[in-house]
Amino acid sequence: MTNRQTNEFPSVSELGEQGILDAMLPLLATRQATLGPGDDAGALKVEGGEVIVSVDTLVENQDFRLSWPSGFKHRAYDVGWKSIAQNVSDINAMGGVPTGAVVSLSLPGDLSVEWVKDFAAGVAAAVESLGASEMAIVGGDLGRSTEISITTTVLGECRYGKVLRSGARTGDLIAVAGRLGSAGAGLAVLESSKQWQSWNRSVRRLVDAQCRPEPPLASGPRAAEAGATSMMDISDGLLRDAERLAKSSKVNFNFNSRDLEAFKARLEPASLWLKQDSLSWVLEGGEDFGLLATFPAAAEIPEEFAVIGEVQHQPGRRSLTKIDGEVVNGSHGFDHFKTRRTI
Amino acid sequence: MTNRQTNEFPSVSELGEQGILDAMLPLLATRQATLGPGDDAGALKVEGGEVIVSVDTLVENQDFRLSWPSGFKHRAYDVGWKSIAQNVSDINAMGGVPTGAVVSLSLPGDLSVEWVKDFAAGVAAAVESLGASEMAIVGGDLGRSTEISITTTVLGECRYGKVLRSGARTGDLIAVAGRLGSAGAGLAVLESSKQWQSWNRSVRRLVDAQCRPEPPLASGPRAAEAGATSMMDISDGLLRDAERLAKSSKVNFNFNSRDLEAFKARLEPASLWLKQDSLSWVLEGGEDFGLLATFPAAAEIPEEFAVIGEVQHQPGRRSLTKIDGEVVNGSHGFDHFKTRRTI
Repeated sequence: MTNRQTNEFPSVSELGEQGILDAMLPLLATRQATLGPGDDAGALKVEGGEVIVSVDTLVENQDFRLSWPSGFKHRAYDVGWKSIAQNVSDINAMGGVPTGAVVSLSLPGDLSVEWVKDFAAGVAAAVESLGASEMAIVGGDLGRSTEISITTTVLGECRYGKVLRSGARTGDLIAVAGRLGSAGAGLAVLESSKQWQSWNRSVRRLVDAQCRPEPPLASGPRAAEAGATSMMDISDGLLRDAERLAKSSKVNFNFNSRDLEAFKARLEPASLWLKQDSLSWVLEGGEDFGLLATFPAAAEIPEEFAVIGEVQHQPGRRSLTKIDGEVVNGSHGFDHFKTRRTI
Repeated sequence: MTNRQTNEFPSVSELGEQGILDAMLPLLATRQATLGPGDDAGALKVEGGEVIVSVDTLVENQDFRLSWPSGFKHRAYDVGWKSIAQNVSDINAMGGVPTGAVVSLSLPGDLSVEWVKDFAAGVAAAVESLGASEMAIVGGDLGRSTEISITTTVLGECRYGKVLRSGARTGDLIAVAGRLGSAGAGLAVLESSKQWQSWNRSVRRLVDAQCRPEPPLASGPRAAEAGATSMMDISDGLLRDAERLAKSSKVNFNFNSRDLEAFKARLEPASLWLKQDSLSWVLEGGEDFGLLATFPAAAEIPEEFAVIGEVQHQPGRRSLTKIDGEVVNGSHGFDHFKTRRTI
């Protein structure tokens, strides 16, 4: 617990609940909600007659570490950023716009209040920088635990209809928006025993992609408007998530290796540094929160989407994911219960 | 960790994420949602143009124990029940009807899958028994942690307008619906060293009130329809919560001791058993999730509400809570950071 605490600042248990709220809430008051924090519930206007909702939890030592093998100290700011990023990404993945959020914080009593303020600053910065300009933090919950745990629930609206996982059709083009492999490469750097002081700027940029991921928030609604037939965000790696999308749609996915190779360039600094193959990060790296979508071949695909393959008929009982026609197994990489997923 | 695990059943890490979902989801499929679990986000219809939202977290050894000093083993079923009860209560407290929920579970790998199934059964039973007949579980999140932590977010709609904490006016009557002190008495029984095998039926009923609280779900909307000027749920004890309501409304609250005494009868079995004063549970016991509301004197107060006092003018700078005109200090009892509250 020593790396949590600094002696200069009071701990959350010393300051007490009202003190924590007084320190945090001004940092979070970014937008006007119908009813913000302070009552039994928050309230949000819903214009389209339907609200979409998604929840994700970040747990210390499971989803982030306060201190990495590389010696790098993880800022609370980055934890706050990621708690927003991964949740607005789920709304984006359905073609929606995030309109509100509630945040539940479970904190050890010895945690410094500065940690909590830095966390709140990261939440506010992510809302601002990612362009979630309609999103208000309308409430939350605060309590004690032995490990830091943050659960964020985001609400949103789909103004061009909901893009589900189940709509991909044979002949559709498969496309991605956002990064592929950067956060995975950054994670490998953080977990390496090579110390952080020796990172160059390109390596550092990959670590930033892991710590402060940037889901392409404008692209979800744009894809919906352009007629995307299916979509999801890539949180557990391209192959694994493609397998899910193909399965939901009862189709096969075929990727073109040449299109995937194009994503390697950005990862080369980490590849050289760690002597690891950068293609594995492209295929299996998670947490960039890019979008994986399918479009009818005749659609005008928004320009930030790169076409990487084609949806094929599924003749057998199981959906297959292929590269250049060769079946790959998307199940390697992550154990689901080690990572998190929306149920 | 030994009291978590039974050797007869696989642990959550043995079964894996899909196995856990397969075991849980059928138990939770109580209602039809626009879009249920399985995609990036769930979806809910919103008829009134506004949604209200509230979140609460339950953490092992903070908000519940798997094993109590009385030797009583806490069922996962009861944890599931309470995770729903305390959240629908927040919606109720605003005069709303719960329409949907998402549940995030953080679980130790060695936890038995039977625990998870029992939890899900408790969630479903609470939705059913408490009368949350319009509420669908539309999604969730599943991941690992070292301590059990459950965060439930509930959405709802206020069909008679939102009843806030800030609307109490001088001359209004103060009334409560639901239990007062039962859950607090039950907690004292659980935490006592007197072993559970010797509980009689009346004592056991108080323990049930703590483990499976029953917020009066029909009463929130009914109070709103009857013109309640302010309302909140009593989660941290009457005095503490009254102090909050009075402060939000910038008024004083004056309770009649005779009206409060009436709530003692139900608590006598525990009072005799533990040799503790039952009035302290009435005044300071939390987690019954009854409603504390104010009504204009001319209102037709719904019959399940018991009038316990009157709203008075606040001449000074601070709101005061009184009993028979004598100022009481609502701040004793709980430390806020030990319990949880909505921010």
